[in-house]
Amino acid sequence: MSNTDTKPLALHFNPVGKVQSPIKNPILKAGESDIELQKRMDQMRAHHQEINDTVSSLFIFEPWTELLDGIEGFSHIVVLYWPHLIDPERRKLRKVHPMGRKDLPMQGIFATRSPARPNPVLVSTVRLLKREGNVLTVKGLEAVDGSPLIDIKPYMRAYHDVAKATVPEWVHRIERELDMDGE
Amino acid sequence: MSNTDTKPLALHFNPVGKVQSPIKNPILKAGESDIELQKRMDQMRAHHQEINDTVSSLFIFEPWTELLDGIEGFSHIVVLYWPHLIDPERRKLRKVHPMGRKDLPMQGIFATRSPARPNPVLVSTVRLLKREGNVLTVKGLEAVDGSPLIDIKPYMRAYHDVAKATVPEWVHRIERELDMDGE
Repeated sequence: MSNTDTKPLALHFNPVGKVQSPIKNPILKAGESDIELQKRMDQMRAHHQEINDTVSSLFIFEPWTELLDGIEGFSHIVVLYWPHLIDPERRKLRKVHPMGRKDLPMQGIFATRSPARPNPVLVSTVRLLKREGNVLTVKGLEAVDGSPLIDIKPYMRAYHDVAKATVPEWVHRIERELDMDGE
Repeated sequence: MSNTDTKPLALHFNPVGKVQSPIKNPILKAGESDIELQKRMDQMRAHHQEINDTVSSLFIFEPWTELLDGIEGFSHIVVLYWPHLIDPERRKLRKVHPMGRKDLPMQGIFATRSPARPNPVLVSTVRLLKREGNVLTVKGLEAVDGSPLIDIKPYMRAYHDVAKATVPEWVHRIERELDMDGE
């Protein structure tokens, strides 16, 4: 097989639910790098703290409520969602300064968490506070209000945590600045 | 907003690449629970070990090669892919015995890692061995040969690891039996 193979046809997804969140707009916009550095960093820090404290509701559409049975046993879940406010044109972006910061080296989109990507499926691990019927209440989800849900998975450290993972220096800089410790 | 809102339209994805793997068939099939328990557990253990040792190639299609720039700085990446050998009918499954094991309690699909789910976007964290142009060589990917790639993301512990995450007893049983420690 090589990269010249015929490309597979498009894949289709029907959202299984929708996010209800107090966050109405994405604060960090990849590619939008015309903001002064200090202001950008202050924004990032405030946004990061806001997300940590945000409580959102995940409404699962009725045909799929039963698929949640057993999710209550997990303290954390992995949420796959679609950043619907991203302009479709921005799915063509190739490189960005991470978080729009010109002081950080340009990176290919696949080397960043930019929401503007060819297939914008965003993956977020959040705390599950409770389940009531078809509604999950979660804490720490970055998704803005109205984001379509693609999938819900249980969080299992044995699969998701890699103790020895290393990252480039620019990631360490962001983590230090945001005082992140993986919760 | 309530669950009676009009459902959003279908989302469309174009695969950004394809997996080349020595694994030709999925060994664990969700819902296929007609196998004797001991045999099932032996299969699981062998399959799990096989996956850990598997080296696969991710071929990124040409328009997107540049998006990989900078990925070399990460020891691990998160791969989103489509389990293309799953019968589309099985996207309608609602509950399964995890890993097809009748000795484990039935769970809703969203409470399991079953590949048969409404929107089968599978998420796997793997070691990145090297990048050569549009090809990533990775270790530990469960995807079978030919699986379409949906997205590639960098793995960052600050985002993906939750040290205090708890899981139900059935997950601990599987982890003990497979001797999993998150690598």
